[in-house]
Amino acid sequence: MTTTAEIHDSIRAVQWQGDHLRLLDQRLLPGEERWIDCRDAAQVTQAIRDLAVRGAPAIGIAAAWGVAMAAQQGAALEPVLAMLRAARPTAVNLMWALDRMKQRIASGTDALLREAQAIQDEDLAANRHMGELGASLIAPGSGVLTHCNTGSLATAGYGTALGVIRAGVAAGRIARVYAGETRPWQQGARLTMWELVRDGIPAQLIADSAAAHLMKSGAVQWVIVGADRIAANGDTANKIGTYQLAIAAKYHGVKFMVVAPSSTVDMATGSGEEIEIELRDPAELLGTNGCRTVVEGAQAWNPVFDVAPAELIDALVTERGVIERPNGMAMQAMFGR
Amino acid sequence: MTTTAEIHDSIRAVQWQGDHLRLLDQRLLPGEERWIDCRDAAQVTQAIRDLAVRGAPAIGIAAAWGVAMAAQQGAALEPVLAMLRAARPTAVNLMWALDRMKQRIASGTDALLREAQAIQDEDLAANRHMGELGASLIAPGSGVLTHCNTGSLATAGYGTALGVIRAGVAAGRIARVYAGETRPWQQGARLTMWELVRDGIPAQLIADSAAAHLMKSGAVQWVIVGADRIAANGDTANKIGTYQLAIAAKYHGVKFMVVAPSSTVDMATGSGEEIEIELRDPAELLGTNGCRTVVEGAQAWNPVFDVAPAELIDALVTERGVIERPNGMAMQAMFGR
Repeated sequence: MTTTAEIHDSIRAVQWQGDHLRLLDQRLLPGEERWIDCRDAAQVTQAIRDLAVRGAPAIGIAAAWGVAMAAQQGAALEPVLAMLRAARPTAVNLMWALDRMKQRIASGTDALLREAQAIQDEDLAANRHMGELGASLIAPGSGVLTHCNTGSLATAGYGTALGVIRAGVAAGRIARVYAGETRPWQQGARLTMWELVRDGIPAQLIADSAAAHLMKSGAVQWVIVGADRIAANGDTANKIGTYQLAIAAKYHGVKFMVVAPSSTVDMATGSGEEIEIELRDPAELLGTNGCRTVVEGAQAWNPVFDVAPAELIDALVTERGVIERPNGMAMQAMFGR
Repeated sequence: MTTTAEIHDSIRAVQWQGDHLRLLDQRLLPGEERWIDCRDAAQVTQAIRDLAVRGAPAIGIAAAWGVAMAAQQGAALEPVLAMLRAARPTAVNLMWALDRMKQRIASGTDALLREAQAIQDEDLAANRHMGELGASLIAPGSGVLTHCNTGSLATAGYGTALGVIRAGVAAGRIARVYAGETRPWQQGARLTMWELVRDGIPAQLIADSAAAHLMKSGAVQWVIVGADRIAANGDTANKIGTYQLAIAAKYHGVKFMVVAPSSTVDMATGSGEEIEIELRDPAELLGTNGCRTVVEGAQAWNPVFDVAPAELIDALVTERGVIERPNGMAMQAMFGR
């Protein structure tokens, strides 16, 4: 199982440097690999808000280090927690990581540093395990389609949905990989293709709107995506376009897999209806690569997440195991207290 | 019914100048309004192939003028017909217009000039009529979503699907307009929004992948699109993404309308399975606005049309009338010989 996918799995986009946090600026990839040094929690918050670091697990890890760094600096931690919590609304891993850090505040700075490291290490281990679990569901020779970026860049390393793809390619189960470009921010075009080319995994980029046509061609047997928040009934919030892929997959009999660490599960959220969907700046749609694409005076609607309902999901993979066709009862059995 | 939509409906992107053809270069919009003067049929062919002129009806009209111009210049017309026919494969209006011109060759240059003018004039009249027919299907206060550009720029004027939207807004039936940006070429972002802002029709641009989320919100009651080729059973080839929209519309109970002149109907094509889908240069996906978006070494799959099957279409509007839920029998009754 030692393949190029394993060898090249070395990008760590979130790196603690002992007294500050180093982040690979994902806004500049693939054109430029520039690193940002965040020297206080406000800079970490800014990096999360501005998408220098993105991906639900990576955001949680960065925020945890932000709290630990604030403790090192003797800052008041309650305002730091509130500031980081407000950086982005949809990804629950952010809240989960901050809750873990909050519980360690009384234990002091060293405990907070150890907790942030544990959050990071556990994420990587979870991704490796999920990769094996998810890949085992895929019949040899299958084609898969993924959306957004769920790889090393979005996590502590290896990735969630992209981790399953890495494991599936390494195991010879996945023969073809397609990535949707993921407008407006183009995480698929810019980041996923960068990781796949770097790993030597043959892949083809498609326009987001070509997915149904691709499914009809018979080239893909699974759609594999990550998640930003999973409700108690299995409804899954993820990057805008996920819902449309889930509908098209159901129409074609293509299977739909969600891969996310259990920290993405929010049993306090009953269903997808309760999940706040982040609206971002319409400017993200009105121009691309620094060029204005759309006439002056035009308006745009830019929700950046949507919700795939549980009934469209064939498999939910977390490090705790696989739930096929998730529903409230199965979710309660695996994630209830 | 005289509204701003009527007053501003003045763009004519394909203009015969007596001895040459002037085309509005749609690759540069909305940033720049530059006109191209095509002085022989080879230049017209090039303009069609390079998308300086696009939109199935507009391509047919431009090609017809290309033949008439060649006749004026005393060129051999059979090679001209073959050259123009090969410029783009999917839009049947191109073949239809060239067949009409071919039948007039024996009648001389003046007859060819009159035929090209007739093709252009009939298209505009058809669009006005289809606008009324399509708008009458829409309940007052509805929201609509369109895809690609089907407006004045894509036709002799007014538009097909966008003509229905113009008529529906003018009649007070359409209260909200959304346009998908239509990757990779961004016809919706660049061209449809330009026409709508110019007409003073309030509209919002969305990412193509946000359509299902929009439908779920209840904001749209109809998806309205054009067509590049309609088969004898009602299957409709149109811009990539149309099929995905049709599936999502069905899932949400949103109605799906196809609007195209009868010249788009190809009764010689039995079903969508027989329609050749144009694959364009992967480079269209690997960069945007002149900037490379994707890492070197990446591959892309770039089909630019797909097929919405008849069973997903609620209304097919041509200038001959409306077919609700098209099928082979209804198509034969309206379009058979």
